[in-house]
Amino acid sequence: MNPPRVNADRLLRSMAAMSAIGATSKGGVHRLTLSDADREARNLLVAWLRETGLRVRIDTFGNIFGRLEGSDATAPIVLTGSHLDTQPFGGRFDGAYGVLAALEAVRCLAERPAYPRRSVEVVAWTNEEGSRFQPTLLGSGVYTGHLDATAMYGATDVSGCTFRDELARIGFLGEAPCRADPIHRYFELHIEQGPVLDREGIPIGIVTGLVGLEWFEATFRGQANHSGTTPMEGRRNALLGAAEVITAVDRIPSQLDAEYAVATVGHLRVEPNSINIVPGVVHLTLDVRATDTDNLRSAAVLAARAVQDAARRHHLGVDYRKVASSEPQVFDAGCIALVERAVEALDVPFRRMVSGAAHDANNLNRICPTSMIFVPSVGGISHNEAEYTSDKDLTLGAEVLLGVITLAAEEEAGR
Amino acid sequence: MNPPRVNADRLLRSMAAMSAIGATSKGGVHRLTLSDADREARNLLVAWLRETGLRVRIDTFGNIFGRLEGSDATAPIVLTGSHLDTQPFGGRFDGAYGVLAALEAVRCLAERPAYPRRSVEVVAWTNEEGSRFQPTLLGSGVYTGHLDATAMYGATDVSGCTFRDELARIGFLGEAPCRADPIHRYFELHIEQGPVLDREGIPIGIVTGLVGLEWFEATFRGQANHSGTTPMEGRRNALLGAAEVITAVDRIPSQLDAEYAVATVGHLRVEPNSINIVPGVVHLTLDVRATDTDNLRSAAVLAARAVQDAARRHHLGVDYRKVASSEPQVFDAGCIALVERAVEALDVPFRRMVSGAAHDANNLNRICPTSMIFVPSVGGISHNEAEYTSDKDLTLGAEVLLGVITLAAEEEAGR
Repeated sequence: MNPPRVNADRLLRSMAAMSAIGATSKGGVHRLTLSDADREARNLLVAWLRETGLRVRIDTFGNIFGRLEGSDATAPIVLTGSHLDTQPFGGRFDGAYGVLAALEAVRCLAERPAYPRRSVEVVAWTNEEGSRFQPTLLGSGVYTGHLDATAMYGATDVSGCTFRDELARIGFLGEAPCRADPIHRYFELHIEQGPVLDREGIPIGIVTGLVGLEWFEATFRGQANHSGTTPMEGRRNALLGAAEVITAVDRIPSQLDAEYAVATVGHLRVEPNSINIVPGVVHLTLDVRATDTDNLRSAAVLAARAVQDAARRHHLGVDYRKVASSEPQVFDAGCIALVERAVEALDVPFRRMVSGAAHDANNLNRICPTSMIFVPSVGGISHNEAEYTSDKDLTLGAEVLLGVITLAAEEEAGR
Repeated sequence: MNPPRVNADRLLRSMAAMSAIGATSKGGVHRLTLSDADREARNLLVAWLRETGLRVRIDTFGNIFGRLEGSDATAPIVLTGSHLDTQPFGGRFDGAYGVLAALEAVRCLAERPAYPRRSVEVVAWTNEEGSRFQPTLLGSGVYTGHLDATAMYGATDVSGCTFRDELARIGFLGEAPCRADPIHRYFELHIEQGPVLDREGIPIGIVTGLVGLEWFEATFRGQANHSGTTPMEGRRNALLGAAEVITAVDRIPSQLDAEYAVATVGHLRVEPNSINIVPGVVHLTLDVRATDTDNLRSAAVLAARAVQDAARRHHLGVDYRKVASSEPQVFDAGCIALVERAVEALDVPFRRMVSGAAHDANNLNRICPTSMIFVPSVGGISHNEAEYTSDKDLTLGAEVLLGVITLAAEEEAGR
């Protein structure tokens, strides 16, 4: 097969124009969900979708769809996209790249003499990041029936604005129903947000699934006391328990036999937190992730044991509870095989990998065949103004996506 | 010698009346320096001093003196007291007890048929706690020439009020010079604020000195990254360095050969401090204390080594600096011997000990023979509304103080 080529200049110009909306002085983007910057980004996307001759649809949660009609209007569609919102002072690539590469791929399809068999839709999901309104993956969560529409409309930001009011304010409370039509396959192209591809010098990651995660909160309760007058014997220092847990959690992945596993204490708060007071209370969080359920369960057992051991050893009370969990996900073998065919046609290095973070693709994977494609994040830096992926890698990722979409759009119903 | 007896009822009534000023719902006292409650407490003390027939003097920093004139008006005086201000939501005993026990002792002297040879002064020092205006030990610091008067007048609280304006507002900007007259001996009676006497069931501590301390701040700098997408290999987790230091600092006292030593990480702050981000920066404090200079230096070396080792092991940048230090202090052997004589006359158990916290006595010790007496703090709890010392121990402490004052006031010039 002759690999399809995207218009690299057009793709990079689109990226530059989109990055200018909410641009920060340090080269990043600050474009929170349903902010004025988000409205401007959405309006630009809608204009581009219309220019391309696509039929634009806004649903009741502001998800934006642009449809290139296929020759078989009744066949389940090929859907591809990502999100336009960013973290506070985030990067230019997280989300926006997946939307604009999808736009570029569909622009290429639209320029061809013949339309594809299946209709192809570009999508921009609302509120992937969850920085302003919780939870994350909100638009795709309602679309896939995973989140409750009424509850989500009522979500409020820190200043008390509701999701629904802000959606209406920026003019994106659409009328199309927020629910999935029959989907043949969903593909999402995204920056890796981790260091693996960059470190190994591999431009394309074929994502086979998502790690599962369990999140816990622990509170150690000792006795706050004057650090000068309280002898070491008999202290009940909550921070000593926490220190043991931090060290033990870091060792958990090496005790597992997982394809990929990570474990982190990311949040810690000390009370009273004064230079001359023995810490009385420490709150901390534990985040364990693994590619398979068995290893995820083992990680959770090791984490709980570390907390209980530390409490016993340092004579501390402890509260320990699970605050979130999600099972590992495996993407569709058919989707993965199509991505592999598209990459091989381009004759570039690739590796299979799992995603350590959740994406809208994880909601779609619950309802239709889904997979993802990663491009490198330099230094593994993401959710940061310094986020960077080279023009060459951006272009190559879009070419892989175009190849995949081209293949998927011609597939028979039975695949 | 027949041990002198205080009027226990009168002492405890005075304590109860003073505790009512700024009383909290949980049985503590909230009486910040130069607040309305502090004014009320001061006015009550002044009234009691006058009732006792003492000559009252307020100096230019609000330190309150009540003088019982001795038969030899030119002999250096015996000075005793403590402070009336409290920590925010602090206890009833910290400070106020030392002032009111001094008042009770002088009331007893004043009731005797013959005046003592030396004049005896009761003192209440301004702003011992340093909670509202920094630094701590302010009134005694200016009195002993250790702190600069002009700079201290300009100290401001969080709402921008200056020390001098607030002192004037409550009517305690006195006219007497804030400087030491010739002092024969200074004694300060205080609650231990630690658990030693209570745990050992000993009612009296003869304080032989003050631990020295060194305070440090360390900042570890790693790389903040997504906790899901960043593999364990290659992480630069600042919190792992901090955890190692917390554990190592706790072990420092056991590696020393000090009469008493403590070491504590009391304050820790994580950035960005999010459940799903590998910590990029951690700030923490180190507090090491020991009874002698050699062990204090060794403790500081061990602390610095722990920080550097942790930085190296976890590939972190580190800033490390000393933020405060004070040398160990040894109290006057003559003062200590007088306290011991007074305790032995009462035939009660006692132990020698060092103070782990600084008191106004530490400023006085720079300019005149000084020592302290401790009574038990139940459970070692202090700077807390639950601070407690039994009536029996309060009474016994005041009797020791009366005995000491009686002895000191009759001493010859050459001692």
